[in-house]
Amino acid sequence: MSSKYAVGIDFGSLSGRALIVDVRTGEELADAVCMYKHGFIEDILPASGEKLPPDWTLQDPQDYLDVLETAIPQAVKSAGIDPADIIGVGVDFTGSTVLPVDKIGTPLCFYPQYRNNKHAYVKKWKHHAAQGKANKLNEIAAQRGEDFLARYGGKISSEWEIPKIWQVLDEAPEVYDAAFRFMEAGDWIVLQLTGMFTRNSCVAGYKGIWHKRKGYPSKEFFKALDPRLENVVEDKLGTEVMSVGEKAGEITPDAAKLTGLVPGTAVGIASLDAHVAVPAVGITGPGKMLIIVGTSNCHIMLGEKEANLPGMCGVVEDGVLPGYFGYESGQSCVGDHFDWFVRTCVPGAYYDDAKAKGMNIHRYLREKAMLQKPGESGLLALDWWNGNRSVLVDVDLTGMMLGMTLATKPEEIYRALIEATAYGTREIIRNHEEYGVPVDELFACGGIASKDDFMMQIYADVTGRELRISASAQTVALGAAMFGAVAAGSSRGGYDSVFDAAKVMPRLKDKVFVPDPDAKVVYDRLYDEYKILHDYFGRGSNDVMKRLKTLKKEQMGV
Amino acid sequence: MSSKYAVGIDFGSLSGRALIVDVRTGEELADAVCMYKHGFIEDILPASGEKLPPDWTLQDPQDYLDVLETAIPQAVKSAGIDPADIIGVGVDFTGSTVLPVDKIGTPLCFYPQYRNNKHAYVKKWKHHAAQGKANKLNEIAAQRGEDFLARYGGKISSEWEIPKIWQVLDEAPEVYDAAFRFMEAGDWIVLQLTGMFTRNSCVAGYKGIWHKRKGYPSKEFFKALDPRLENVVEDKLGTEVMSVGEKAGEITPDAAKLTGLVPGTAVGIASLDAHVAVPAVGITGPGKMLIIVGTSNCHIMLGEKEANLPGMCGVVEDGVLPGYFGYESGQSCVGDHFDWFVRTCVPGAYYDDAKAKGMNIHRYLREKAMLQKPGESGLLALDWWNGNRSVLVDVDLTGMMLGMTLATKPEEIYRALIEATAYGTREIIRNHEEYGVPVDELFACGGIASKDDFMMQIYADVTGRELRISASAQTVALGAAMFGAVAAGSSRGGYDSVFDAAKVMPRLKDKVFVPDPDAKVVYDRLYDEYKILHDYFGRGSNDVMKRLKTLKKEQMGV
Repeated sequence: MSSKYAVGIDFGSLSGRALIVDVRTGEELADAVCMYKHGFIEDILPASGEKLPPDWTLQDPQDYLDVLETAIPQAVKSAGIDPADIIGVGVDFTGSTVLPVDKIGTPLCFYPQYRNNKHAYVKKWKHHAAQGKANKLNEIAAQRGEDFLARYGGKISSEWEIPKIWQVLDEAPEVYDAAFRFMEAGDWIVLQLTGMFTRNSCVAGYKGIWHKRKGYPSKEFFKALDPRLENVVEDKLGTEVMSVGEKAGEITPDAAKLTGLVPGTAVGIASLDAHVAVPAVGITGPGKMLIIVGTSNCHIMLGEKEANLPGMCGVVEDGVLPGYFGYESGQSCVGDHFDWFVRTCVPGAYYDDAKAKGMNIHRYLREKAMLQKPGESGLLALDWWNGNRSVLVDVDLTGMMLGMTLATKPEEIYRALIEATAYGTREIIRNHEEYGVPVDELFACGGIASKDDFMMQIYADVTGRELRISASAQTVALGAAMFGAVAAGSSRGGYDSVFDAAKVMPRLKDKVFVPDPDAKVVYDRLYDEYKILHDYFGRGSNDVMKRLKTLKKEQMGV
Repeated sequence: MSSKYAVGIDFGSLSGRALIVDVRTGEELADAVCMYKHGFIEDILPASGEKLPPDWTLQDPQDYLDVLETAIPQAVKSAGIDPADIIGVGVDFTGSTVLPVDKIGTPLCFYPQYRNNKHAYVKKWKHHAAQGKANKLNEIAAQRGEDFLARYGGKISSEWEIPKIWQVLDEAPEVYDAAFRFMEAGDWIVLQLTGMFTRNSCVAGYKGIWHKRKGYPSKEFFKALDPRLENVVEDKLGTEVMSVGEKAGEITPDAAKLTGLVPGTAVGIASLDAHVAVPAVGITGPGKMLIIVGTSNCHIMLGEKEANLPGMCGVVEDGVLPGYFGYESGQSCVGDHFDWFVRTCVPGAYYDDAKAKGMNIHRYLREKAMLQKPGESGLLALDWWNGNRSVLVDVDLTGMMLGMTLATKPEEIYRALIEATAYGTREIIRNHEEYGVPVDELFACGGIASKDDFMMQIYADVTGRELRISASAQTVALGAAMFGAVAAGSSRGGYDSVFDAAKVMPRLKDKVFVPDPDAKVVYDRLYDEYKILHDYFGRGSNDVMKRLKTLKKEQMGV
């Protein structure tokens, strides 16, 4: 019997990727990337030349179709396999990424009459212009004592579905009315491939305020937001939610023409990008935390019961793997803050020296930082350059560093920033354990995790937990491919559940990061200091950061 | 009658300068600088090749003689005047700068038998190797309830005379025994010029624990330190102290040969460098604070009564001007911390752009920082990169900054550091006023004050006080020259008191920095935030900075 393959299609912020995986071994044969031609649409709407207001981030869904049309055939070709041996396709997408479509699933922005209407486009996760709606929603939900707030750490984000849809209703009712559905982009891709309207439990739960047992918030709640929203769920979202791991449908003849795949190939229900990575590192039950390390950190855990952790991003039954409660937490600023540092604070001489040594500036700084012992710099930072997501859920917090002397060097500051993100992760772990969700082991994936052994050792030392790293450079796409293999089922050479797939397909690096006992003792002391400052600045003892932000806004006249 | 001139000789940390001033107008005719050939002797003792222990900083007094021999004749020549028209010479020196000499005033290190003995050299102010002695002295003084501690903000510094002399006694008793006197370098220069052993009230008071009415600490106190120190005052310092403004003596024939001055020219009692600048900006009474802005800030005030301000460097009757109590406070890190910043944190692109524009990097940053409004950056810093001198007197405090976001720019950090030093000055002013020493107006001198209008405006805005700047580029040397004119007296064409000289000789810039009312309102809010953090980190609520320093030392094994 010949080998069977699955395709994972991973839609990121600025590009999409197709990965071909051998279903029996997890071996990754080839991948191909397609950049979104329009990128983020933030300044000018290309069709009309209209200047977009602040905080808008749109995309053109044509860019997603281009991924299907180019990345899939390219990857198949590079892999040198017969498309007939591909048994399943899985899809993941960054979210919440919302677009209005008509009855046949065509995005409204594809029609000439809506081409110039900015509300007809995709609203990307980083579209923050619905903040006013999110604030109002949270206020009304709190007044009404809506219990769903507790499942989201107390706050619904402006990045999520309902605030964005409400913004459309308010600012472009004609678009709202014309929309047959507001779809998450991942479900829309599944629609393009299978012709089926589906709604996945991951995005419905994490971004759409859906609960497996309780469903959506009540009509009364939506009516209290705006009478015109009373029936938004039935009218604009569709009520049926399918669990991740289920099959959505099969490749249609049209989709086969577009992608080069064979009609009838199984397609799985879509999922969010971070969450799909969990089985791809072999996590299939409680006690193991996955950290997706990137510009920000995303922490995902499975639990057997529903606990309301303060400051988590969300807890969703079936949201990550069927049969479990998936907990998501996050840190707003990880890679982003190292990038800020090298852009803003690293002297020219360091760049020159790094160049002379043929090193990337991050590696150059790491090699210097590595020579220090924990605590030797005397520095301590709060990792809040981009606010605090978990566990404080406060975008108005800002960065803090102390301990600087006239002898402080750039590599010491760099190391202190790395350590600060590790303390932040430890604080998230503490929060889980305090509320009855134990965290015994860590797993990590993402570019920084696979490249930066130094940082990963610090994470192990600071958290006092063993840390394993995904061996896949494309862990998220691998996870998507696993769900493709599960959609195909064992009868077609795939798997009947993601748990079966997770026994075979994931690969971890051999190296395990084991906490160094000497470093651990020092980091315990440093984390205690971090915690004191975290609570002092973050929990109301001294709201100086907020007052400075208020003053800043006053002075800028915004 | 032809014009009369005075010479001010200003001995700094690494060079000495002679300035020729017209006594009637204050006009500065010429100056000349002589660098110390040996600079700071910190690593290796040149005579023996011996490696010096950590924290040692020596100098070779031959370098000071070179200043007399080269800078004075050069300045006279540049001025194009007849040395016979020079009526007086004044001397100031950075202190405490201590050297052991024999009966004829020859430094012990000039003799072959002591040439290889490091304790026979000058111990510079920044020699910190007597810290153990200072700690012990403070401990014993506190135990004994010595009231002098209150005159020095509660602590005697390791930079001062007694700890240094005690270190010599302990580590090189043969040098201690051979020394006829331990002299301050300023008094030693006066000795070279006049042949007279004098001891000035400024250095005796600020660095030697001398009090005009109470004298030195008791023999019992010195005996408690070490029985061999019981008679240190009579045996090694000399008991007679002369007030600043008095005449020390006249140029001897030998000194005339060395300097090109005329024998019989009057020479004033020496003084410390910062203190001598007070009359040079026209301050002759209470209410006006002089800030000498340099690598660190030094704040000097006159008062009509003796108040014990917590955390001041010292209060000395006759220490600055005769008949007044001189208060000294300080900030440890001003120019130093901008230098740290441009060395450590400014990206290469800024240097390239500054170079392309033909600008010094400080000016480049200032021009960018100037475009911001107060509070617009959202940043706030504690100016403790080098500890806090006044009002906390704590070398173990360290720098702190908060408010950083991913949009924070280098020029915003730079401005926040400038503002932090201004808040520190405001805190010093607050401390004076709380203890009954009102501060109505500010005066500033020093390189940064004369060049950096932007920073001076921030000082005016933050403190809410008018600020005037010395028009002299060499305010300290001008002050020394004024004391030279006073030593000469009116009969020789000079002045009978420094108050008379101060009516005529000082010059201020026309521009007065007046607080901007809008900026003042914002800075009041920012200073309130600074004050909360100042007290939180500096007064024991959270000793995290000290704990981090302890940990740092443990990790470095020191």
